[in-house]
Amino acid sequence: MNKDFLTYDWNSFNNLSISEKVELFNHGKKPYHGLMAQQFNRAYLDEIYHLTNVIRAISKSKQGSLFLQSLLPHKKAMLYFMQPSTRTYLSFRTACQILGIQTSDVRDSSISSEVKGESSEDTLRTFSSYFDYIIMRHPEEGMAERAAWVLEHSDRTVPVLNAGSGKDQHPTQGLLDIYTLRRSFENHGGLKDKTIILAGDLLRGRTVRSLAQLLTHFEGIKLILSSPEKFRMKEDVIKILEDSNTEYVVTDKFKEHLPEADAIYMTRVQDEHDSGGEKSERSLPDFSLTVDDLSNLKEHVAILHPLPRRDELDPGIDNDPRAKYWRQERNGMWSRAALIILIADKQQEVLDYWHQITRQVNHTAKALPRN
Amino acid sequence: MNKDFLTYDWNSFNNLSISEKVELFNHGKKPYHGLMAQQFNRAYLDEIYHLTNVIRAISKSKQGSLFLQSLLPHKKAMLYFMQPSTRTYLSFRTACQILGIQTSDVRDSSISSEVKGESSEDTLRTFSSYFDYIIMRHPEEGMAERAAWVLEHSDRTVPVLNAGSGKDQHPTQGLLDIYTLRRSFENHGGLKDKTIILAGDLLRGRTVRSLAQLLTHFEGIKLILSSPEKFRMKEDVIKILEDSNTEYVVTDKFKEHLPEADAIYMTRVQDEHDSGGEKSERSLPDFSLTVDDLSNLKEHVAILHPLPRRDELDPGIDNDPRAKYWRQERNGMWSRAALIILIADKQQEVLDYWHQITRQVNHTAKALPRN
Amino acid sequence: MNKDFLTYDWNSFNNLSISEKVELFNHGKKPYHGLMAQQFNRAYLDEIYHLTNVIRAISKSKQGSLFLQSLLPHKKAMLYFMQPSTRTYLSFRTACQILGIQTSDVRDSSISSEVKGESSEDTLRTFSSYFDYIIMRHPEEGMAERAAWVLEHSDRTVPVLNAGSGKDQHPTQGLLDIYTLRRSFENHGGLKDKTIILAGDLLRGRTVRSLAQLLTHFEGIKLILSSPEKFRMKEDVIKILEDSNTEYVVTDKFKEHLPEADAIYMTRVQDEHDSGGEKSERSLPDFSLTVDDLSNLKEHVAILHPLPRRDELDPGIDNDPRAKYWRQERNGMWSRAALIILIADKQQEVLDYWHQITRQVNHTAKALPRN
Repeated sequence: MNKDFLTYDWNSFNNLSISEKVELFNHGKKPYHGLMAQQFNRAYLDEIYHLTNVIRAISKSKQGSLFLQSLLPHKKAMLYFMQPSTRTYLSFRTACQILGIQTSDVRDSSISSEVKGESSEDTLRTFSSYFDYIIMRHPEEGMAERAAWVLEHSDRTVPVLNAGSGKDQHPTQGLLDIYTLRRSFENHGGLKDKTIILAGDLLRGRTVRSLAQLLTHFEGIKLILSSPEKFRMKEDVIKILEDSNTEYVVTDKFKEHLPEADAIYMTRVQDEHDSGGEKSERSLPDFSLTVDDLSNLKEHVAILHPLPRRDELDPGIDNDPRAKYWRQERNGMWSRAALIILIADKQQEVLDYWHQITRQVNHTAKALPRN
Repeated sequence: MNKDFLTYDWNSFNNLSISEKVELFNHGKKPYHGLMAQQFNRAYLDEIYHLTNVIRAISKSKQGSLFLQSLLPHKKAMLYFMQPSTRTYLSFRTACQILGIQTSDVRDSSISSEVKGESSEDTLRTFSSYFDYIIMRHPEEGMAERAAWVLEHSDRTVPVLNAGSGKDQHPTQGLLDIYTLRRSFENHGGLKDKTIILAGDLLRGRTVRSLAQLLTHFEGIKLILSSPEKFRMKEDVIKILEDSNTEYVVTDKFKEHLPEADAIYMTRVQDEHDSGGEKSERSLPDFSLTVDDLSNLKEHVAILHPLPRRDELDPGIDNDPRAKYWRQERNGMWSRAALIILIADKQQEVLDYWHQITRQVNHTAKALPRN
Repeated sequence: MNKDFLTYDWNSFNNLSISEKVELFNHGKKPYHGLMAQQFNRAYLDEIYHLTNVIRAISKSKQGSLFLQSLLPHKKAMLYFMQPSTRTYLSFRTACQILGIQTSDVRDSSISSEVKGESSEDTLRTFSSYFDYIIMRHPEEGMAERAAWVLEHSDRTVPVLNAGSGKDQHPTQGLLDIYTLRRSFENHGGLKDKTIILAGDLLRGRTVRSLAQLLTHFEGIKLILSSPEKFRMKEDVIKILEDSNTEYVVTDKFKEHLPEADAIYMTRVQDEHDSGGEKSERSLPDFSLTVDDLSNLKEHVAILHPLPRRDELDPGIDNDPRAKYWRQERNGMWSRAALIILIADKQQEVLDYWHQITRQVNHTAKALPRN
């Protein structure tokens, strides 16, 4: 039981400000849970970026892989995924495997005790009885936060990692997106001062919501929020952009902004969140990127997409060197491994190992490989 | 093939007495399969209690965890769960992981060869082709016993562990319940001479059936079998209590017995075993424990529940120090690990390691941690 | 990206001859993917046979098991099974575990991103982002080949192993069948010059199709292709038999050929491939083997069946020493481990270890155990 949490029932907790929640989720110092993009300030983003690079580099050799697997072999993780997922699920699972963590999963409530009428609070406490980390995706907004709140009221609290909750947050996607952008601009002046288009369903795309918030930690960013009017970015994110003096444009134009973009982040229509009445389209042709558009793009533009895609992103682009989305996908595994390392407080062990092997082979300069 | 089994076809085997079956399942000396509570006499219960404590203590350090994982890394277990389960499944799975055993599972017959018309005998033989242990839960009574019988007639016999079969037996739940009771009374004179209420659906609750049988191995126990008349404990268990001279009361009162109880074992209505006609309730308000009851309980009473619960056990009790059910749940993982160690004949390796590290640090007195 | 593949779009690739495909799948030298029986010439069959024996022998000790697990612990495999499967799935999974490979699986498209409209190409590229091997079973013919073609056009190509595609190919079943036949005849002059009945549904039984092709690599084989007329072996396989001068008989008789058989390979009616109109039987009594037939069989006949079986193979035969199908099933695990070792290019490490331990204990003669 955590006395900082005990003073709040769920309603009063839920009504706390973002920064008050961040303070609690970070246990007053560094991320204990990984629940919302706002927990990651610039210092953490820098640390995770470096750690991700180092983990990737270490894993290139069998010996390095075995070192990584020796970090957390005594830990167990529950992958509790109550929504369909391929990428997030597999990248979290393989991230665990890379670090030696043993995994189990519950992905189908029909084979669990919820069919016997168990409350979701009891299910979560049960997971905390057997597992050291709970990685969860849930269709309801705020469920990951609630899970953390439940466990902080129990006598066996374990970290909760949010793998996507409702239309709200998807913080680890934000981390991997930031990582991919930074790597893409590594030889082009870094992420600073870049113009980035976020395109498509900005209303319900939780990935763009998390990303926009994380981008406020970088100087001189200009965001072009390009969507049909009905799918505009919500006011809460706009307010964060304004509070942080991040330059942004809200527009229902897409194609005409392409030439100025340093990065283009495409998204698909999130029609799985549709309730009956909305009748939204499954695709937005005016907010799609095709092979014909390639000639209008900058030479070093980075094209990203959280995937899965539909027709908003032409597979004909896949083999263009500016297409970064498959690398972005793979980066998800490395970024999530880095986040787990941070939460498990193993970053120093990783960095020490890295310094040791780079000193040995004396090729520090080329040691951190290009994407 | 085991000649002791070959003399029996399934019907004649099934009609053997309990003690004849125990003899066969124990391969004449110690549990080879783990199928029924009756296989565990007082000596085994003591051994498993000690082993569970030691495994828990060893696992507290990373080094200890790695030792445990080094015991059975060359073994593989099949978790064959043909009934919904969270706790039993996850605790068996994590128990395997703790011991280094690699697991696979079949939890959904629609993705297995049974859809092609395979007999359950062939499915079991198939599991024994690839796995060293078969851990199974099945809705039909006696299926785990039948599995052992099938494999003892094949040329690749492997141990079968019963993770719950029908309304009948759930022996590993019995083991973890005994473990939890003993730990709860460790500083209060042990389990001897205690008064224990078993409350709720005693007819179909296989956990209370296994527990009642195991409790006959302890002196001076008084059992209060508290249930509505329609859910009374069956005659077969009553007979075991009488044969062992265990004091018991059959009653349809619950609340008035609370003050005399040293332990209260709550259970939920097992309505998943209802056939159409029964129309039983989903809850029994007169056999429920609420926050209001706490003031009528002894200071050191142990409140247990096999979970999942419905409204027979008020979540408001959870943080009372007398609530032991969350620890009980976690004990399931340790007890099951201990049982596997016993069946795999690795207990001496575990005890040797424990003696070695406790001699080193010279703090034997505090080495076995409190629950 | 593999330039040898880039010159072909899917249609032109699909129209290549078998030998051209083999050349591509073998990357010009040895199997890179494991997709079709034709990739395995006699030299590879001999190598896999020896490797399978050695892996089995090494695994008998805990120390040997740990050596095998040290071969590929830095690798991860995706088991992508879009058709029900017990044996092939579990044997591939346990083969991976034996070699230290960490596995994940996707067996149910309803929990993956395909429900969000992802193309199967994107799903495969996603798997290749996180995994080093893709082991796949698919109801559509040619899908495993297509998967390889897709990945060879991406910048992250990984080996694809075909675990059964449509009615077409099941090459690893062929490998384990050849292994089982060779072991069965190890003390009876080897596979050379043997008469083998393939019985049942030869039209849609992909196991017999793969096996027939692999048997052409052995001298003096006589095949008796015994099936109802409507389930006759297709012309493409017949042509391979003729081109390789393999003696064969096509017959709708079964029982009268039993006395001359050295091996009998039974199969079940593959009615899961029925489309509505066919209305085929679920069993073929004239192509069934019963206890009564045993007296008409040779003393050293080997009875095989890929399992699962229905009533074409009487369980009463199971304990006859000539019944090899349970061993055959278990051999699937060892053969698949051997194939993975071949593809991962670890055969020399395995053989070196084997020579080292057999030299030590100096009992080479008995070192390769009998089945």
